[in-house]
Amino acid sequence: MRIITISREFGSGGRELGKRLADALGYDYYDNEIISQIAKNLGLDEDYIENTLSNHNWQDFTLTYNETIGSSYYDQMDKVNLLIEQKNVIEKIATLGKNFVIVGRNADIILEKYEPFNIFVCASMESKIKRCLERKNKDKSYTKKVLEQKIKKIDKNRSRTRQLMSDLTWGNPQNYHLTVNTSNIRIASLIPAVSSYVNNWFSEKEKSTENNQ
Amino acid sequence: MRIITISREFGSGGRELGKRLADALGYDYYDNEIISQIAKNLGLDEDYIENTLSNHNWQDFTLTYNETIGSSYYDQMDKVNLLIEQKNVIEKIATLGKNFVIVGRNADIILEKYEPFNIFVCASMESKIKRCLERKNKDKSYTKKVLEQKIKKIDKNRSRTRQLMSDLTWGNPQNYHLTVNTSNIRIASLIPAVSSYVNNWFSEKEKSTENNQ
Repeated sequence: MRIITISREFGSGGRELGKRLADALGYDYYDNEIISQIAKNLGLDEDYIENTLSNHNWQDFTLTYNETIGSSYYDQMDKVNLLIEQKNVIEKIATLGKNFVIVGRNADIILEKYEPFNIFVCASMESKIKRCLERKNKDKSYTKKVLEQKIKKIDKNRSRTRQLMSDLTWGNPQNYHLTVNTSNIRIASLIPAVSSYVNNWFSEKEKSTENNQ
Repeated sequence: MRIITISREFGSGGRELGKRLADALGYDYYDNEIISQIAKNLGLDEDYIENTLSNHNWQDFTLTYNETIGSSYYDQMDKVNLLIEQKNVIEKIATLGKNFVIVGRNADIILEKYEPFNIFVCASMESKIKRCLERKNKDKSYTKKVLEQKIKKIDKNRSRTRQLMSDLTWGNPQNYHLTVNTSNIRIASLIPAVSSYVNNWFSEKEKSTENNQ
């Protein structure tokens, strides 16, 4: 089984890279499917799970959710519980034994024992802001300054959530097999070479495993 | 003209990657040729230049060279003068107009206006020590502990020399187009995919330049 994990800075196009890579390689692709599964398992609303897990609650949580949902202590407990359930779902996916690409969710840490190929996707702030503005979503309505603040906050949250699970620092290239900078380049144009890199890497590793047996 | 610069952690196999990449792409390759040219230009000994520039004087300089060469102030001036001459030589190479790969020497900064493709090569400490021990040189005689100390010191020097020339932090993946982790993998096996990545990147960029004209 070959697993590719994609970690990425917000706005770097990591999700697009993951999806296109899965398509090119004929692998399964997991992203929001995981949220749906958690929702089903726990009988909770998908939007609520998405909001709590996504780190997109980049504006201070207390200002937006607390009055309806409760104290920030309980919100944090909810987040921890959801992270545990997310971990369960991801581990379940791996037991299916099929090749897959998974985006975010600290899957590189959770799936470590399966020796996945781990990609980190980064880009310059200018390029990340540009990508956010091109997306067909609410990011369009933000000013560049507010977008930059949002990007930094989301990435800080991603980095902190990772600290819960591992000492391997988020975004440090030593902790990934390949780190791709998507500044000023079409994601689609990178896919043939990244696919080829990943295929070579797995072939090499499988060869050396065979030789050691 | 297409230029590829390779920055690398000591022991990561970056030099081998650069040489093999140049061979695969049919590019010129610059590494110690630069030292020879500086020696010729300045009428100095190649070994002296190599030692002063290479950052391999990882043991405290005062303990090994000072008594014969002079005070550390003059050594530092020598180093700055040599860095300037190295910069001149590298800029001269670029005026030849031929495709080339260049390893180290902050060439990514020096050649910035030519928009080179910049690769950073890293690896786990364990893997870097292993590569040093496999090399046919004096590294073989060091213990693992001393080698680790050497690797850290050389990389610290590389990082500091870079600070002289740029605010773009050494080893930060935002400052390179591709960051390759060579832990537990044969360098040769990575070359087809890295070549293909570089070729795609240049084609894309040249296409978008044509469209903008």
